[in-house]
Amino acid sequence: MNGRVFGFLMFPAFEELDLVGPWEMATMWGAYAGGPRCVTVAAAPGSLRCAKGLAVAADHGFEDCPKLDYLLVPGGFSAFVTMRDAPTLDFVRRQVAGARAVLSVCTGSFILAAAGLLEGRAATTHWKALPRLAEWPGVIVRQQRFVRDDTVWTSAGVSAGIDLMLAFIAAEDGAEAAGKVQFNAEYYPDGTLHGIAHQVPEAPAYIKALA
Amino acid sequence: MNGRVFGFLMFPAFEELDLVGPWEMATMWGAYAGGPRCVTVAAAPGSLRCAKGLAVAADHGFEDCPKLDYLLVPGGFSAFVTMRDAPTLDFVRRQVAGARAVLSVCTGSFILAAAGLLEGRAATTHWKALPRLAEWPGVIVRQQRFVRDDTVWTSAGVSAGIDLMLAFIAAEDGAEAAGKVQFNAEYYPDGTLHGIAHQVPEAPAYIKALA
Repeated sequence: MNGRVFGFLMFPAFEELDLVGPWEMATMWGAYAGGPRCVTVAAAPGSLRCAKGLAVAADHGFEDCPKLDYLLVPGGFSAFVTMRDAPTLDFVRRQVAGARAVLSVCTGSFILAAAGLLEGRAATTHWKALPRLAEWPGVIVRQQRFVRDDTVWTSAGVSAGIDLMLAFIAAEDGAEAAGKVQFNAEYYPDGTLHGIAHQVPEAPAYIKALA
Repeated sequence: MNGRVFGFLMFPAFEELDLVGPWEMATMWGAYAGGPRCVTVAAAPGSLRCAKGLAVAADHGFEDCPKLDYLLVPGGFSAFVTMRDAPTLDFVRRQVAGARAVLSVCTGSFILAAAGLLEGRAATTHWKALPRLAEWPGVIVRQQRFVRDDTVWTSAGVSAGIDLMLAFIAAEDGAEAAGKVQFNAEYYPDGTLHGIAHQVPEAPAYIKALA
């Protein structure tokens, strides 16, 4: 992965864990298994406020962002605003044209769709947004934790980006690399199902299969 | 939880997901189930760089931090530096004295230990640091994903903070609240074990039980 760069897109009110879950896995890929260098990028470098109030800052703006080998797009309710922002869509299209893969988490898939990157692709999103994604012309919606369609990877909501990124590392660099990341991030969830909120008709098929 | 405040401690080079995993769960508790208001606090308000390079900012300094009902302490290699910082230990002790509970993730447990909060307590930490925690006088080390000892909650490494926080919400506010958070954060990990890096003698008992 020498010299490769993994970009993480930030935009106003993006959802914290959508980005930071995969960020932690990808930066551990760099630290423990020779993975790519990770950078954050937004329309302009500097401060942003996340969906749940965390203050963060982007290292690069669209203008000074290096050529990316990989791009991850997080979601959040504000993705439905960002999906109408022409400079963001231009940036995503331009970078993805030269990249090895693009990944989205949660409603980040709507930004990919708006950029024309999900045409004829299988994809997924947060369970609340599945009906809306199903209405998008040309998108084949899957009710899975994450979906790979060639070089386009999309995940279900928020925390699903962690599973997505580990599977991506395994595909791109092998199970040994993904295993080192998983062990160092100690990602062995206990699988507890709290309460019954997920036992509703709107739950995606992969969650229904658990309960 | 009306009026309660949940503080998230930041310090130089804290590990990103240690804080943001539980932060996402706790802020969703606020957004979907009437949970407490969440704030970030560091020695001084303003910019910090995380362990893996993410730029963040703390909303409060120790001086202007509101009285906290709950405090979460993340880890990272730099926790072994912060555990020797007297102002941080004073702040933690002072807030915890009036709080309902204190939680740590990963090597954050060493900051609790240095503040004298793990004396006679069962606790855990990142698998790499278990031998070091076992040497700490008065700490009863458990090789579990997370440990509750009355009002002191500690977790294993990095991603374990998510399981910790969901269990904490369930204990503090009931399974229904925790379930709403879990569903909105779509935290239903797929349980994949990548590679064999975790099949080593140093792995904690709860991971050995998986493989």
